Amino acid sequence: MSTAKAPPPSKLAMVPFVSVDHMMKLVHAIGLEQVLIGLAEYIEQDFRRWEMFDKTPRVASHSSEGVIELMPTSDGEVYGFKYVNGHPKNTKEGLQTVTAFGLLANVGNGYPVLLSEMTLLTALRTAAMSALAARYLAPEGARVMAVIGNGAQCEFQVAAFKAICGIDRVRLFDVDPRATSKALVNIENMGIDVVPCTSVEDAVSGASIITTCTADKQYATILTDNLVGSGVHINAIGGDCPGKTELHHDILLRANIFVEYPPQTRVEGEIQQLSADHPVTELWRVFLGEAPGRSDRAEITLFDSVGFAIEDFSALRFVRDQLQKTGQYMNLDLLADPDDPRDLFGMLSRAKLENSG
Amino acid sequence: MSTAKAPPPSKLAMVPFVSVDHMMKLVHAIGLEQVLIGLAEYIEQDFRRWEMFDKTPRVASHSSEGVIELMPTSDGEVYGFKYVNGHPKNTKEGLQTVTAFGLLANVGNGYPVLLSEMTLLTALRTAAMSALAARYLAPEGARVMAVIGNGAQCEFQVAAFKAICGIDRVRLFDVDPRATSKALVNIENMGIDVVPCTSVEDAVSGASIITTCTADKQYATILTDNLVGSGVHINAIGGDCPGKTELHHDILLRANIFVEYPPQTRVEGEIQQLSADHPVTELWRVFLGEAPGRSDRAEITLFDSVGFAIEDFSALRFVRDQLQKTGQYMNLDLLADPDDPRDLFGMLSRAKLENSG
Repeated sequence: MSTAKAPPPSKLAMVPFVSVDHMMKLVHAIGLEQVLIGLAEYIEQDFRRWEMFDKTPRVASHSSEGVIELMPTSDGEVYGFKYVNGHPKNTKEGLQTVTAFGLLANVGNGYPVLLSEMTLLTALRTAAMSALAARYLAPEGARVMAVIGNGAQCEFQVAAFKAICGIDRVRLFDVDPRATSKALVNIENMGIDVVPCTSVEDAVSGASIITTCTADKQYATILTDNLVGSGVHINAIGGDCPGKTELHHDILLRANIFVEYPPQTRVEGEIQQLSADHPVTELWRVFLGEAPGRSDRAEITLFDSVGFAIEDFSALRFVRDQLQKTGQYMNLDLLADPDDPRDLFGMLSRAKLENSG
Repeated sequence: MSTAKAPPPSKLAMVPFVSVDHMMKLVHAIGLEQVLIGLAEYIEQDFRRWEMFDKTPRVASHSSEGVIELMPTSDGEVYGFKYVNGHPKNTKEGLQTVTAFGLLANVGNGYPVLLSEMTLLTALRTAAMSALAARYLAPEGARVMAVIGNGAQCEFQVAAFKAICGIDRVRLFDVDPRATSKALVNIENMGIDVVPCTSVEDAVSGASIITTCTADKQYATILTDNLVGSGVHINAIGGDCPGKTELHHDILLRANIFVEYPPQTRVEGEIQQLSADHPVTELWRVFLGEAPGRSDRAEITLFDSVGFAIEDFSALRFVRDQLQKTGQYMNLDLLADPDDPRDLFGMLSRAKLENSG
C-alpha cells in the first residue's frame, strides 16, 4: 500500500561512516605522506587554539585484563570522542592491543556528523603528533632516527618522521627479531635507509632522534642513562598508562620535557616517575611561540607522548574534510528522524504498515 | 595480482550494527508488547545484580543550546555506553530533542560486540522502566493512567503500561492539542480506551497512575499539590536535568519517593527541589525485596525517573540477544584486525597493492 510508505530518512539522520576498508582506501587515495602531513597540520591548528577546547579527563573503565576508555572533547562548535581499549595480552591471542573508533557531532544540535574507525587513524595521528613535536624540538639537521620497539606503531613513526622532519635513515631494534624483520619489509619501499640493529646501544649510535615505542604494561627501562648523549631528541611513545614507562629516571632529570596535557601526562607518562611539580612545557605553548622549544644544540629534549583527545578530534576533522574528495564512506541510518519530531511512535508504527504493505 | 590479495576482515573485526530501520523491523518481528516486556525483564535482572555494576556518573559536555553525554557502565564482563544529546530547541527546527546510539564491548579484550541506534531504543527502555517500577509501586488493580505531556515519549509509556501493568484506559492532556491528536491516532489500534482531556485536572480525574512527560527545560509545575489525591502512583519522566522539574514541591513532601541512582537523581530529578538528605528508596532494593515498595493503598508513591546507564546496558543486551533470531543487523568493518596484530602498517600497505592489482 503505497500511501502508507514512510519517507526515507532525512539527510541529518544519516551519519557518514568510515570503515577500516574506507580508511585504507582514503589514505592511499591521498597518499600516506600527505595524510601524515595533513594530520600534523590539523593537530597544530587545534593545539594553537588550545584554550578554546573543553578538556575533560578521559573516562576509564579498568579491569584485570585491560582498560576501555572514552576520550571526549569539544571546541564549542564540534564535539568529538574516541572509544579506545588497551589490552596488552590481546597480541598473544592474535588480537590488536588497541582498537578504536570515534565520532564527531554538531554541538548546536547534538547530531553526529561522522563515525569512523580509529585503530588505523590513531596509529597515523600518533605518528603525526610525534613528528610535529620533533619539528619544534629535534636538533637542526637531524636525519637519523633510532626506533626501539618495532611493533604496530614503528613504521607509522618512520613514515611520519620522513614526511614531516626529513629523516632519511632509521636504525631499528626490538627484543623480538621477527618484529624488526616485519618492519624492514614494510619500510623497504619508503625511500629511506633502514638498518636493523642488534641492541639498543647499537640502534642509538649516531641517531639524533630516539623513538621508543615498546608495549609492555610494566615499569621497563628501555633506555638507560648512559645510552643517551647530548643533543638528542627522545620521542617516548610507549609509556602511556599508570605503571608503564620506558625511560630510566635519570634521563628524565637531564632532559627538557615537553608534554601534551600535564594533568594526564603526570599520571600516564614517563613523568609519573617524577615529583608532581617537576617542570614541564606544554607543546601548545611552543607551537604558539609562547614557550621556547629546544634552547641549544647540546640539550636533551623529550616528548613524553601519551595521546590526547584533541589529537583525535583533529584527526577526525581531517578525515571529515576528505570525505567528499575521496568518496570513502557510507551513510549509516544511525538516527531516528521522524517528520514530526514528536511523532517517534508514529514513525515506528508506519514502518510496520510499510513492511506488511 | 591475486597473491597480494588481503584476506577479508576476521569475524572479530566485524561489529554487528542495528540501524534505525533494523530496530523498527526488529520491534515488529518480535512484537512491540513483547519487546517492552523483554526490556523490563532484562532491566529487572540487571537491577537485581546492581552491586556488580561499575556505576560511573555520566560525562556531560554542556553548551548554551544543550548537552551531549556519554553514559558508560560495566558488569565486569560486558561494557556498555550510550551517546545521547539533549537539545530542547531542536523540535522547533524539525529535529529530535534527543538522539542516541550505544555500544556493547567485551571487557576481556576490549572489542566492541554491538553498535546500535538508541533513539528508539531509549524511548522503549524508558517506558519499560516506568512500567516495571509501577508494577512494584502502583496500587493494586490500577487500570486508568493519566498522561500529561503527549510528546515523543507518550505512546511508548501507554504501550508499556498496557503490556506490563494491565492498564486499559488512558486519559491524555497536553497544552498543545495537536500533540494529543497525534497521540490519539497512534494509540487508536492498541486495544486500550483513550480519552482526550481539556486540562490536567480533567486528565487526572479517576486515574490511579499519573505519568508526567513534558519537555520544557525549566522549572515547571505540571502537577500542583491539590490535583494529587491519595492512593496514586506518579511516574515523573520529564524532570530529568538540572533546572527541569514538573512537580510541585509539596507533592514531593507527601510522597514515598523511589529512584534509580540517588547521586544522579538528586542532581537531575524532581528531588533536586528537596534537601540532599531527604529519604528516597533505591528501586534495585525494592526489586530484590530488600526494601518495601508501596506500603498501603492510601500512600502516594513517586518514581522520580531520570534514566540510568544500566537501563541502556540492559536494553543493548536485549537487542544483542535478538540479532540471530531476527537477522536485523549488518556487520560493520569497524575494527582493524591484521593477521599479525603487530603488522597494522603491513595491512595498510597490502590494501594499496590490492587496489592497484
